[in-house]
Amino acid sequence: MEDVLIRALEKVELRDPILIEGLPGVGNVGKLAADYLRDHLHAKPLATIYSKFFPPQVYVSETGIIRLVSNELAYWKAPASAAHDLLILGGDFQGISPEGQYEITERVLDFSAKLGVREVYTLAGFAQGRVIEEPRVLGAATVPAKVEAMKKFGVHFSRNDPGGGLIGASGLFLGLGRLFGMEGVCLMGETSGYFVDPRSAEAVLKVLARVLRIEIDFTALEAKAKEIDRIAQKIHEAEQRSAEGTSVSPSASRDDLGYIG
Amino acid sequence: MEDVLIRALEKVELRDPILIEGLPGVGNVGKLAADYLRDHLHAKPLATIYSKFFPPQVYVSETGIIRLVSNELAYWKAPASAAHDLLILGGDFQGISPEGQYEITERVLDFSAKLGVREVYTLAGFAQGRVIEEPRVLGAATVPAKVEAMKKFGVHFSRNDPGGGLIGASGLFLGLGRLFGMEGVCLMGETSGYFVDPRSAEAVLKVLARVLRIEIDFTALEAKAKEIDRIAQKIHEAEQRSAEGTSVSPSASRDDLGYIG
Amino acid sequence: MEDVLIRALEKVELRDPILIEGLPGVGNVGKLAADYLRDHLHAKPLATIYSKFFPPQVYVSETGIIRLVSNELAYWKAPASAAHDLLILGGDFQGISPEGQYEITERVLDFSAKLGVREVYTLAGFAQGRVIEEPRVLGAATVPAKVEAMKKFGVHFSRNDPGGGLIGASGLFLGLGRLFGMEGVCLMGETSGYFVDPRSAEAVLKVLARVLRIEIDFTALEAKAKEIDRIAQKIHEAEQRSAEGTSVSPSASRDDLGYIG
Amino acid sequence: MEDVLIRALEKVELRDPILIEGLPGVGNVGKLAADYLRDHLHAKPLATIYSKFFPPQVYVSETGIIRLVSNELAYWKAPASAAHDLLILGGDFQGISPEGQYEITERVLDFSAKLGVREVYTLAGFAQGRVIEEPRVLGAATVPAKVEAMKKFGVHFSRNDPGGGLIGASGLFLGLGRLFGMEGVCLMGETSGYFVDPRSAEAVLKVLARVLRIEIDFTALEAKAKEIDRIAQKIHEAEQRSAEGTSVSPSASRDDLGYIG
Repeated sequence: MEDVLIRALEKVELRDPILIEGLPGVGNVGKLAADYLRDHLHAKPLATIYSKFFPPQVYVSETGIIRLVSNELAYWKAPASAAHDLLILGGDFQGISPEGQYEITERVLDFSAKLGVREVYTLAGFAQGRVIEEPRVLGAATVPAKVEAMKKFGVHFSRNDPGGGLIGASGLFLGLGRLFGMEGVCLMGETSGYFVDPRSAEAVLKVLARVLRIEIDFTALEAKAKEIDRIAQKIHEAEQRSAEGTSVSPSASRDDLGYIG
Repeated sequence: MEDVLIRALEKVELRDPILIEGLPGVGNVGKLAADYLRDHLHAKPLATIYSKFFPPQVYVSETGIIRLVSNELAYWKAPASAAHDLLILGGDFQGISPEGQYEITERVLDFSAKLGVREVYTLAGFAQGRVIEEPRVLGAATVPAKVEAMKKFGVHFSRNDPGGGLIGASGLFLGLGRLFGMEGVCLMGETSGYFVDPRSAEAVLKVLARVLRIEIDFTALEAKAKEIDRIAQKIHEAEQRSAEGTSVSPSASRDDLGYIG
Repeated sequence: MEDVLIRALEKVELRDPILIEGLPGVGNVGKLAADYLRDHLHAKPLATIYSKFFPPQVYVSETGIIRLVSNELAYWKAPASAAHDLLILGGDFQGISPEGQYEITERVLDFSAKLGVREVYTLAGFAQGRVIEEPRVLGAATVPAKVEAMKKFGVHFSRNDPGGGLIGASGLFLGLGRLFGMEGVCLMGETSGYFVDPRSAEAVLKVLARVLRIEIDFTALEAKAKEIDRIAQKIHEAEQRSAEGTSVSPSASRDDLGYIG
Repeated sequence: MEDVLIRALEKVELRDPILIEGLPGVGNVGKLAADYLRDHLHAKPLATIYSKFFPPQVYVSETGIIRLVSNELAYWKAPASAAHDLLILGGDFQGISPEGQYEITERVLDFSAKLGVREVYTLAGFAQGRVIEEPRVLGAATVPAKVEAMKKFGVHFSRNDPGGGLIGASGLFLGLGRLFGMEGVCLMGETSGYFVDPRSAEAVLKVLARVLRIEIDFTALEAKAKEIDRIAQKIHEAEQRSAEGTSVSPSASRDDLGYIG
């Protein structure tokens, strides 16, 4: 089979489209943000991406229906007043090998380039290893002009973060994107790195919304954030009781967090 | 060499054939069931599948004859009164890498599609991590109509099982099969996951026999199940004696289980 | 680059040649035997085999000269009275991945088939996990006629050994060889599996010499076997002294064994 | 995408060019030396090498600019009096799989051969596992004439070092280079193997400079060596204080070493 198989569901003409990438990763921040954006805009499915570089796995829905793991591209036609339509990339997995990461990214960029994409925003989490009360949004970009533009939207460019560079799709879409003549920005929401973080996703999406001049209602994302807070609080209490000698199963409760997102 | 090499032993015309997949996996349930079905129907060898995604290994028979590890497709011509001939896939291994899983599955599906296959049943075990007295058969399907049809045969569709989806050939044949326009069902026999489980294979095969309107004599499979019970009982007793201080080698006895199936 | 690169050093016409394979493996038995045969017959280099499935490594000779790791085919023109010329495969490594094993084996078989090879003998060690005083030679073959023929040369065909089959080049050359219409035999010398074993290589080679009707002087191989015995004895004594409290470095002595072979 | 993508920045004609390789490795000796040579000669960028055999990673500069990990070829036009222009290969990583090592090396050699390269010097560190006061330069070469030539420049050819051969780019560029008709030498600076070692890089570069008849000012490299000495000394003192019960964080200080080079 082809290494990467992109099945287009329809043909579209897009106006100077921008590609938004948000795949699973640290705190699931990028995926949460991209999926929320797609749902909020009622973006339409454009193409499904299968690959032998994903796990050999199917998901089963609650009604028993099987679906092969994949990535998906959705598109959003902006109102006539706006400059850019959007292509939004989400999905179940990043490529599970270094080679797979390169192959999948290259194929999606190639597909996007043919639709006219010249600009990419990648969304990700940045693990700080400690609880983050007010997540900042850190940035990296392909050109100095983008750095300056992002600073105006409150994005932080730190001399030391990310020190070792970015590993995975959010970096690669920009790094390989340059070979396609695309410019772009990575927006990284600070997060503890310990669980899925809708609050960090919201911070990232707020910046992106301002950049794209889109209005987004964050009610549902905030509700999700509160649910995480509530569970985290329960775990914290359970662990405290546990430390005090009461018999509990904090690890079981921790598992609940995995299902959110 | 070709990644996957399918050597056809003869040319056949099949009447609206259904593909049955049963490869090694959890409790060897799928393989036990598919092999038993093939033997019971006296299905004929159709093609041997070699691949560099199998281990670089040969098996040696008791008489000293070498055979390269492989998968095999057998076919069964149904009586004129029946609607579907059968293709049965069995073998020594699933692909040993994610990429290999995809490649082998895709090639077998392609070969099957050319023979007219439009429907797939995959057989597997579902590890419950505890002793199962009366194994239920759990299901997953590619379309709601199949779910409803299977419920009538006593297949259970649980909201939570399998929670994380299915990994391996039994899922992939259905997930990739959809790209070939095939519909299908995965039948999973509950099993402990600790040893090979002919009883679970029998439960799966009983459902499949009813679906396919085939009569199967389960005497030999039940004998195999009793042999496993007997060995498991011996191990249990040996471990108890061991716990009481008698010198035994329960691990050696455990090894016996591996040879069955 | 090509996955497997076979650089022929000259063009030869061979008379009904037999391929002998002996690569590094258990006790280095196969390699010791094949190399000894090649040296004894003054077989000439025919082709060098490079591959990206070997380690990315060069060896450096004592005089400082670099050589890329490889396998080598040598050929021996039998006297006019004999029926078969020989092709002898030796080398530094087997392929370091399952895929590599298949690719390299397939390419060497293809090259050999073009030279007229229809028969293959693979040489290997069979680890028994205990000291072997008088190594037997165990066998496996592609057809019953070869099994019977080998029994007459004293080769043992055991119902249980090798129970799990053969992993690696010695099995694969026979298993894949069948797809090239080649028949063959694997000759396995019993060995402890703990160190290189010239004595087991001698046992294997003695059988092969009788099969091929070649006279071989084993003096040098026996000298090597005695050297191993001497070192093993020294290690044994050192370990005993060590157990008695004397300060020694048996592990350092053990390292000596690795250099022989 | 292509496995290895070489993007040439300009077209050049070079006079009988010599390829110098220095990629990350033991003590970063090769990379330190090659980068220093490139900077000292003000060699010009010639081509950027991307590959799916590098990590799927981007680096972020202090100003927030993203760059995909790569290797780079630079060229230096020698003065008319000199015989050889230079091609200098440096970069972020060696290929991260054996297959990747072969593919990348082969492609760079092919590119270099087209520019007329017939001679290769690879620069590396040789880990001795102990502190090295005065690093010697060890050698290995593709032909005896090169061994003799190098001895005159003070390069040591030891019967036992490197005993097991060379693993990685510095060996492979020579081993595969021979298949391109190139001759070459590997220059290995002795180093402890515990941290980056500019002093060993200087020793290597001093030999290379004499071989190439280039004058190099080592002031900056010596400053770097002194910085490492200073940090190593601080760590040593911290560890001693730590052993005496004072609270320090020697591991944090150790990290500083990683940034140098």
